[in-house]
Amino acid sequence: MQSDYSRYFSHNALGVKKSQIRELLKLTAKPDIISFAGGLPDPGMFPVDWIREAAGAVLEKHAASALQYGKTEGVDPLRDQLLKYLGRQGIPVNREQLMVITASQQGLDLVTRLFIDPGDVILCGAPTYIGALQAFNSQRPRVMGIDLEDDGIDTVRLAARIRELAAQNTRPKFIYLVPDFQNPAGVTLSESKRREIVDLAEEHDLLIIEDTPYRQLRFEGEAPPPLISLNNRRVLSLFTCSKILLPGFRLGWIAGPPQLIEKLVTLKQSVDLCSPTFNQFILAELFEKGRIEKQIERIRQAYREKRDLMLEMLQAHMPREKGVSWTRPEGGLFLWVSLPERVNTGELFQQAIEKKVAYVVGEAFYPGGEKKNSMRLNFSFPTTEDIREGIQRLGRLIRESL
Amino acid sequence: MQSDYSRYFSHNALGVKKSQIRELLKLTAKPDIISFAGGLPDPGMFPVDWIREAAGAVLEKHAASALQYGKTEGVDPLRDQLLKYLGRQGIPVNREQLMVITASQQGLDLVTRLFIDPGDVILCGAPTYIGALQAFNSQRPRVMGIDLEDDGIDTVRLAARIRELAAQNTRPKFIYLVPDFQNPAGVTLSESKRREIVDLAEEHDLLIIEDTPYRQLRFEGEAPPPLISLNNRRVLSLFTCSKILLPGFRLGWIAGPPQLIEKLVTLKQSVDLCSPTFNQFILAELFEKGRIEKQIERIRQAYREKRDLMLEMLQAHMPREKGVSWTRPEGGLFLWVSLPERVNTGELFQQAIEKKVAYVVGEAFYPGGEKKNSMRLNFSFPTTEDIREGIQRLGRLIRESL
Repeated sequence: MQSDYSRYFSHNALGVKKSQIRELLKLTAKPDIISFAGGLPDPGMFPVDWIREAAGAVLEKHAASALQYGKTEGVDPLRDQLLKYLGRQGIPVNREQLMVITASQQGLDLVTRLFIDPGDVILCGAPTYIGALQAFNSQRPRVMGIDLEDDGIDTVRLAARIRELAAQNTRPKFIYLVPDFQNPAGVTLSESKRREIVDLAEEHDLLIIEDTPYRQLRFEGEAPPPLISLNNRRVLSLFTCSKILLPGFRLGWIAGPPQLIEKLVTLKQSVDLCSPTFNQFILAELFEKGRIEKQIERIRQAYREKRDLMLEMLQAHMPREKGVSWTRPEGGLFLWVSLPERVNTGELFQQAIEKKVAYVVGEAFYPGGEKKNSMRLNFSFPTTEDIREGIQRLGRLIRESL
Repeated sequence: MQSDYSRYFSHNALGVKKSQIRELLKLTAKPDIISFAGGLPDPGMFPVDWIREAAGAVLEKHAASALQYGKTEGVDPLRDQLLKYLGRQGIPVNREQLMVITASQQGLDLVTRLFIDPGDVILCGAPTYIGALQAFNSQRPRVMGIDLEDDGIDTVRLAARIRELAAQNTRPKFIYLVPDFQNPAGVTLSESKRREIVDLAEEHDLLIIEDTPYRQLRFEGEAPPPLISLNNRRVLSLFTCSKILLPGFRLGWIAGPPQLIEKLVTLKQSVDLCSPTFNQFILAELFEKGRIEKQIERIRQAYREKRDLMLEMLQAHMPREKGVSWTRPEGGLFLWVSLPERVNTGELFQQAIEKKVAYVVGEAFYPGGEKKNSMRLNFSFPTTEDIREGIQRLGRLIRESL
């Protein structure tokens, strides 16, 4: 038998390539490398005692349900808590507008399967979240990136692109946005742009996927309204517990129009039947005890301090040259460094590894790989010591490269 | 805006229908109905104390890893335990041949996405597991059911079908089998048929998906070898912790050729990044403490007693008429009742609900809905009291209908 199995593969599977970025990330995992490359929460912040207490309470009170299969749309105690939690954030939804998912990556996969045929158009920011691009690419769409500005996606270009497509009788299947502290760039979509985009969606009969993993991690300033609060007929919002609590539970939720939620539940049945019930009950217990909002407050404070430190170190150690700049995110996990166009951060990466510091090569976040002079830095995971030392190493590397 | 969103849906999503069977199952959930319809483990068997102990140990020893993101292929401590566990069952695999999944339903979804384009042929038993049909149908294949016999799928018909297809230049993408205590029929594929099927696969260059949720729940008799132990180049085997421990963790694993596992890991990245790490660490801890094999022994004993009771009650209360028969499974969770062809169990279902007893209508398990005179009965979930009373009600109903 041939050891090459590709003759059995579907066209979609043939199109799926191993993520180069994940291969690069493996290089950053060596213990002596200071890595700003991951997107991990700070494990020192995990509220281990609260988890232990909640897990114990669940096994005491709800073992028969919490260890059994659950409803595909999520177990009732969690959904009830989520409705209240969303309500407190100005997102008034009812049960028919909400489903639990196996973290927001599953949400990206489900919306891709719900909407995308090969060749369909998806609009998104450029750069944008790699995991979304991976989910989208599993159905071979045309992903069109629209440049980001300091206040989010360039809505003039977005509108122009939609009109161009309309002239070719093409309606994008959806606009994908990470409005708050965007991954990778850290920028936040302004309120006026949010309203423009919702109007564009109405005008051109489009849907919007709003991905909100970092929204609750705001360090300062006022939060613009969630897109779903501006239009609940055209917006599906994805949420995750990975950044506000911990990723190891693999839990998230989607809010949106009941007709879409119903169809997504049907799709989810064939994908994994239901999300982990044990974890859902633990999360419900943590909400009920008021732990989640306390935890969010703790994380905000810790990450704000790390962001401040990283900004301070960048200010002190990055070369003062035209074309060298970085974003100042008001929240989230990431900031984005741009270098003069002659610098290729992909080529620089090997030298960075030799100098024992790592970042994510910015190119990976562009649907078409179009820009090569940027990098993403994560400030949530590294210790303050590592931020100090790592940014010094990075500054030296970049100074030498210029 | 139109409230019908179907204009946005992909062709695959348009083809996915709400499961009628799940709608029927909702009817069976009323508290006064004795239901043999579900496929749930007995919650009374969940080893709550062991779970509490293991969760505590994980939070004590591994919190930083167990609450964080994990590798897509599964966390090392669990994969190490699974390799040993599979080795003890005569399935010698290495790390490259094994990945953790979010329970075996995800395995069915991943293999469907890996192999199936619309119109591709899948061969399987008729009847077969509904969840597999749902996963397959999400990519719109042609699913061809081959009749089951008391010792599993009819290999003469299977071979004939493969030859017919070959004459049309069509190679099935895979053969899907539940070799042990098949869901829904409870029958086990004999060793000689296993060898025939593996030979057929070699002859016609086919792959086999072996789904083994019940294999460890053997009450008596000797287990035929797993298909993967007969051929490790053409067989992908799916495993789940749902039936040997509990479903609420949503954990399973796949063993198979390294080239296929590698590709499945890449697909899984875009689907959910990784399976719940907290749960993986707890499962690893339970394996390490020897709890899993003890738990399997406890479940075997409990389910054997329930199966014996159900068989005894069927013997006492079912009409003695030609065409009335049922299977005598040597393990698993289900048995299968066949009635004379003039009886339509779908039509009988409403009367059953009125008589406060429920089953799954057999038709749902046929890829083409071809047989209408059978039903699936589950004996793992109901109490012994309910089995006594429920089978009496069912016998009365069937006697009246004949």
